[in-house]
Amino acid sequence: MKTPVGIIGFRGYSGAELIHILDRHPHLEPVLLEHREGEGAGPQVGKTPRKLAYSPEVVRENGLAAVLLATPPEVSMDLTGPILAAGAKVVDLSGAFRLGTVDRYKRWYKENHTQPELLAEAVYSVPEFHRNLVPGARLISNPGCYPTAANLALRPLLAAGAIDRRHGIVCDAKSGVSGAGRKPSLKTSFCEVTENFSVYSVLDHRHVPEVLETSGIDESEFSFTAQLLPVHRGILETIYFKASSDISTAQDLHQIYLRAYGEEPFLRIYPLGALPDLRAVSGKNYCDIGIKFDPGTKRTVVLSVIDNLVKGAAGQAIQNLNLALGLPETAGLL
Amino acid sequence: MKTPVGIIGFRGYSGAELIHILDRHPHLEPVLLEHREGEGAGPQVGKTPRKLAYSPEVVRENGLAAVLLATPPEVSMDLTGPILAAGAKVVDLSGAFRLGTVDRYKRWYKENHTQPELLAEAVYSVPEFHRNLVPGARLISNPGCYPTAANLALRPLLAAGAIDRRHGIVCDAKSGVSGAGRKPSLKTSFCEVTENFSVYSVLDHRHVPEVLETSGIDESEFSFTAQLLPVHRGILETIYFKASSDISTAQDLHQIYLRAYGEEPFLRIYPLGALPDLRAVSGKNYCDIGIKFDPGTKRTVVLSVIDNLVKGAAGQAIQNLNLALGLPETAGLL
Amino acid sequence: MKTPVGIIGFRGYSGAELIHILDRHPHLEPVLLEHREGEGAGPQVGKTPRKLAYSPEVVRENGLAAVLLATPPEVSMDLTGPILAAGAKVVDLSGAFRLGTVDRYKRWYKENHTQPELLAEAVYSVPEFHRNLVPGARLISNPGCYPTAANLALRPLLAAGAIDRRHGIVCDAKSGVSGAGRKPSLKTSFCEVTENFSVYSVLDHRHVPEVLETSGIDESEFSFTAQLLPVHRGILETIYFKASSDISTAQDLHQIYLRAYGEEPFLRIYPLGALPDLRAVSGKNYCDIGIKFDPGTKRTVVLSVIDNLVKGAAGQAIQNLNLALGLPETAGLL
Amino acid sequence: MKTPVGIIGFRGYSGAELIHILDRHPHLEPVLLEHREGEGAGPQVGKTPRKLAYSPEVVRENGLAAVLLATPPEVSMDLTGPILAAGAKVVDLSGAFRLGTVDRYKRWYKENHTQPELLAEAVYSVPEFHRNLVPGARLISNPGCYPTAANLALRPLLAAGAIDRRHGIVCDAKSGVSGAGRKPSLKTSFCEVTENFSVYSVLDHRHVPEVLETSGIDESEFSFTAQLLPVHRGILETIYFKASSDISTAQDLHQIYLRAYGEEPFLRIYPLGALPDLRAVSGKNYCDIGIKFDPGTKRTVVLSVIDNLVKGAAGQAIQNLNLALGLPETAGLL
Repeated sequence: MKTPVGIIGFRGYSGAELIHILDRHPHLEPVLLEHREGEGAGPQVGKTPRKLAYSPEVVRENGLAAVLLATPPEVSMDLTGPILAAGAKVVDLSGAFRLGTVDRYKRWYKENHTQPELLAEAVYSVPEFHRNLVPGARLISNPGCYPTAANLALRPLLAAGAIDRRHGIVCDAKSGVSGAGRKPSLKTSFCEVTENFSVYSVLDHRHVPEVLETSGIDESEFSFTAQLLPVHRGILETIYFKASSDISTAQDLHQIYLRAYGEEPFLRIYPLGALPDLRAVSGKNYCDIGIKFDPGTKRTVVLSVIDNLVKGAAGQAIQNLNLALGLPETAGLL
Repeated sequence: MKTPVGIIGFRGYSGAELIHILDRHPHLEPVLLEHREGEGAGPQVGKTPRKLAYSPEVVRENGLAAVLLATPPEVSMDLTGPILAAGAKVVDLSGAFRLGTVDRYKRWYKENHTQPELLAEAVYSVPEFHRNLVPGARLISNPGCYPTAANLALRPLLAAGAIDRRHGIVCDAKSGVSGAGRKPSLKTSFCEVTENFSVYSVLDHRHVPEVLETSGIDESEFSFTAQLLPVHRGILETIYFKASSDISTAQDLHQIYLRAYGEEPFLRIYPLGALPDLRAVSGKNYCDIGIKFDPGTKRTVVLSVIDNLVKGAAGQAIQNLNLALGLPETAGLL
Repeated sequence: MKTPVGIIGFRGYSGAELIHILDRHPHLEPVLLEHREGEGAGPQVGKTPRKLAYSPEVVRENGLAAVLLATPPEVSMDLTGPILAAGAKVVDLSGAFRLGTVDRYKRWYKENHTQPELLAEAVYSVPEFHRNLVPGARLISNPGCYPTAANLALRPLLAAGAIDRRHGIVCDAKSGVSGAGRKPSLKTSFCEVTENFSVYSVLDHRHVPEVLETSGIDESEFSFTAQLLPVHRGILETIYFKASSDISTAQDLHQIYLRAYGEEPFLRIYPLGALPDLRAVSGKNYCDIGIKFDPGTKRTVVLSVIDNLVKGAAGQAIQNLNLALGLPETAGLL
Repeated sequence: MKTPVGIIGFRGYSGAELIHILDRHPHLEPVLLEHREGEGAGPQVGKTPRKLAYSPEVVRENGLAAVLLATPPEVSMDLTGPILAAGAKVVDLSGAFRLGTVDRYKRWYKENHTQPELLAEAVYSVPEFHRNLVPGARLISNPGCYPTAANLALRPLLAAGAIDRRHGIVCDAKSGVSGAGRKPSLKTSFCEVTENFSVYSVLDHRHVPEVLETSGIDESEFSFTAQLLPVHRGILETIYFKASSDISTAQDLHQIYLRAYGEEPFLRIYPLGALPDLRAVSGKNYCDIGIKFDPGTKRTVVLSVIDNLVKGAAGQAIQNLNLALGLPETAGLL
């Protein structure tokens, strides 16, 4: 008998990925919670999850252990309180509860935060860093896609003092189109995207402060650009910095990652000389990391690659949900 | 000193192609006529055509010899009368004036035709078939993309009695996404189209009656399917039929095409053994035709390929405009 | 304790798909058998299957219950005998053993068949039609990708007399590029394929006789064209025919399919009004079928869609392998 | 009467682009010089240029004013001497004559340079920087694609002292697949490239020394990564640096570019707030430049975009050829 968990926002790309993962989950069963009308999916010709009209009562009456919110930030702010009151945990995939203060939220999201108390309560969790905080939490804030790849690459190096921070860090990020969501727009139309490549945010992407907060670097040190790849899914970040004087060989950097992630089920550190590409993680919850280092000048390039819909959204959310419900962290994800 | 011609609907894909062609036209100069607000194009960093707010007075005062309408049918119906009254010719790229009767328009376009007199006046022109009718016309109806490819392939064969019509004709048509226009929709979103292929109209596409009217075949003889290719532009139609008893060799079919099109500047009949692909006509006003014939069974396959935005829309429109204005038919198009 | 089965040709696209499926199979474990050197795959950063140098002794000593051959026909002909002699069953994914006679093989494959006795022994199996023949067989010939989609669509209709065969059957087939294999060639280079669509075989594809043999139709009745879609994977066939006088409504055709396939786990018959697309079956072992019928003229269009690497190759091979080894037919495939 | 110029290597992507441009050139006429057998292009159904078997005599007898070499470096080294001796100028599109010394050639191209005297004679020309050197030259070395975009972006800033070089310069470069040439390889196969994005050279690309030589920066200051976009054509470079203390506003950087390039026909400096994308330059000889600057921290991002086959190869070669032959620099290119 599987535990039912709700999904609101199941028509979007992250929502569809949540269904896809939960369909094969050994302990959990998805329940679709219809909240707002949207464009329907194609005809259902196979088995489909149970679908209910959303209300807090429905959450309570159906004994949903948790609700996953794949909704815009303002919708997540509205829904979270009532769902928690109905006795379910919330894993929110939006940006509503990711930043540390309402001021910072206002600066980067250009809107007021309407739920400061929930913001204070929320536990932001990249499981590899914060897994101990999740079991006791009611509200888990799932990280953004770009920060997940950036923080998994940067934090171990920063902790080990491997980066000469005086020269700054460049993070040149490229994402597939699903990162922009399923709502039709000219910018994500096939004819505008195919055979094209464009930059859509330079230095001012709203995911930047998540990297700063989690990795402990200053905005002045970090140059971030978000670019649109003509692919469905995947994020590749090319990260540039000068290594500190402690680092003499590529092996030194490799060892730092192995020490940090040697036991992690979803981190794959590439052997020196090999580099990950987008396809390596497609449809999977992995973050793949590759290293290139020039000993003479200490110029360093680190690649960090994830599937934006899996480790960057739905997969990490299930990882957090597993932790929140006391299940094996990797359940349904390998 | 170039003759000014107006473009309404210049933000769409056909409109952009009209600008692109007219920018290099030796005798004509494009004037953009702003009619309804729409999503702007990117920043203008090069030379750009003159842009005016549309009104019939503006058409008259600026001495526009003609106006090209790259607008939806209902807009074309509204605009045509006043433009003609202002003294300019009209080349309409929509379906408004393509069918022979208001009843047929209503059946296939699911709306009433509001301008029956203009419909009666309009000259429908595939230049290769109707070029003699164009110079005297005020209102030229430019053919649809699918019918252009189909009619150019079928008409010579039908005229020569080369098709055994008892067995019917199958036209399996595939189009790039620009054929659906520039307005954002879920169906034309990158993530829905890439790595996909779908059928969007079977037997009931509104372009079917144009083929029937122009080629003189009956609906019961003609099976047409419209499908969406994950490419920006281009139409390829795979046409199947049984050849009539007069046809003994592939050479017989080849000769029919050469006799019909030997002097045509925009028709390229492939040597036997070679077949055109989408790329062969990309950005060009050609219609490329290839033939495969099985002598034993008389099964025949004809490929007809065009760029839907050029020979299927803007290129053919300029071809018609050249004829209407007494210019060389190929001006700006080779 | 899982049963080991060998894979030869594991570096190709079908081979990779075999590994992917067997990695999650509840009863079987893949063993890679290195037969000829080829270009290596990317760096192995996760778990990888056991890899051995191929020899018949290795097959015997490791107790392989079966060997899957994802090799060219001439290699399959060479390998099959020794593997059978070593006590393992063979499921061959090539065309080596698909046709009924060596003469037919020579006509369509343009080479002599070197193993007529094995050809006589081989059991060709689309499991939905031939599952009873598989358990007793040593050598199973896995169907071609195009014939799988065509036969699953056509056989029930032909058996029910639903097709007016005097007018012939048109099968307009489109395939993703992986159908051409992994060996580099100009025709499958990115720059040649992207934003293009081309026809590569008209009336003479080597998969045609498989359709004729399995569905019992005559070559003169069947017009088949194979075309290259700019996508990685998937086959969509648009099939045209006139329905026989027995068929009055689309519902009649729908019922024929439901009766034939109502219990089949991998066949999905779409409700009338809905049509499958390539994405619906991507990565899955389904064959999806949709119907469009015009009652007045009996023109009919049937869509049949599969993933060429799954139901068209590796998935169907595992389905056959499950049957051959007495396992549940769907094991590892849902 | 047009002046004939030869093309060797006309079957590659750069060669095809040379033909495409020369077909519309007002003063020059392409003559194809067959040098080595290669895979043929598709069927010729339109007009095609004259084709001759290459020999130095043929160059002389046909009065070719120049020969364009779209060949690998080692072929260019062999061919250049005899062509010059036959009285024609040479514009070489390969890397054979781009670097200043044979030692540097050996380090980056991993082969010995066989023509040191020609290397000494060759004039490397980005026309915007070196146009005065070209008219007197016999042998012009056409720049690499990546260095063209990088140098056009960097040189004016470096000359104006706008970059704080202590912090280094990062150039994150992305290229379409045609940059890898037309020879089939697994890395450029459709199935490997589509829905993928990969890094193929980090810090050690052979184009790096061209940037260093032309812009006068040191290798230790410059981090360059070359990445493969799933598109046919185009290069976008995202360039990161800290501006020097002289720069207070984005306007300051904008002015530097306008002063340097205000009169240049092929440089388009975007207004502040706008950024170029790949499509903006597709098929054109432009280099488009956009700027983003953060005044508080002086972090700066410059985008430089070209079509790798036009401004990055064939277009720039014709620009140089025009200069070499005393024709208007923009002839055939606008």
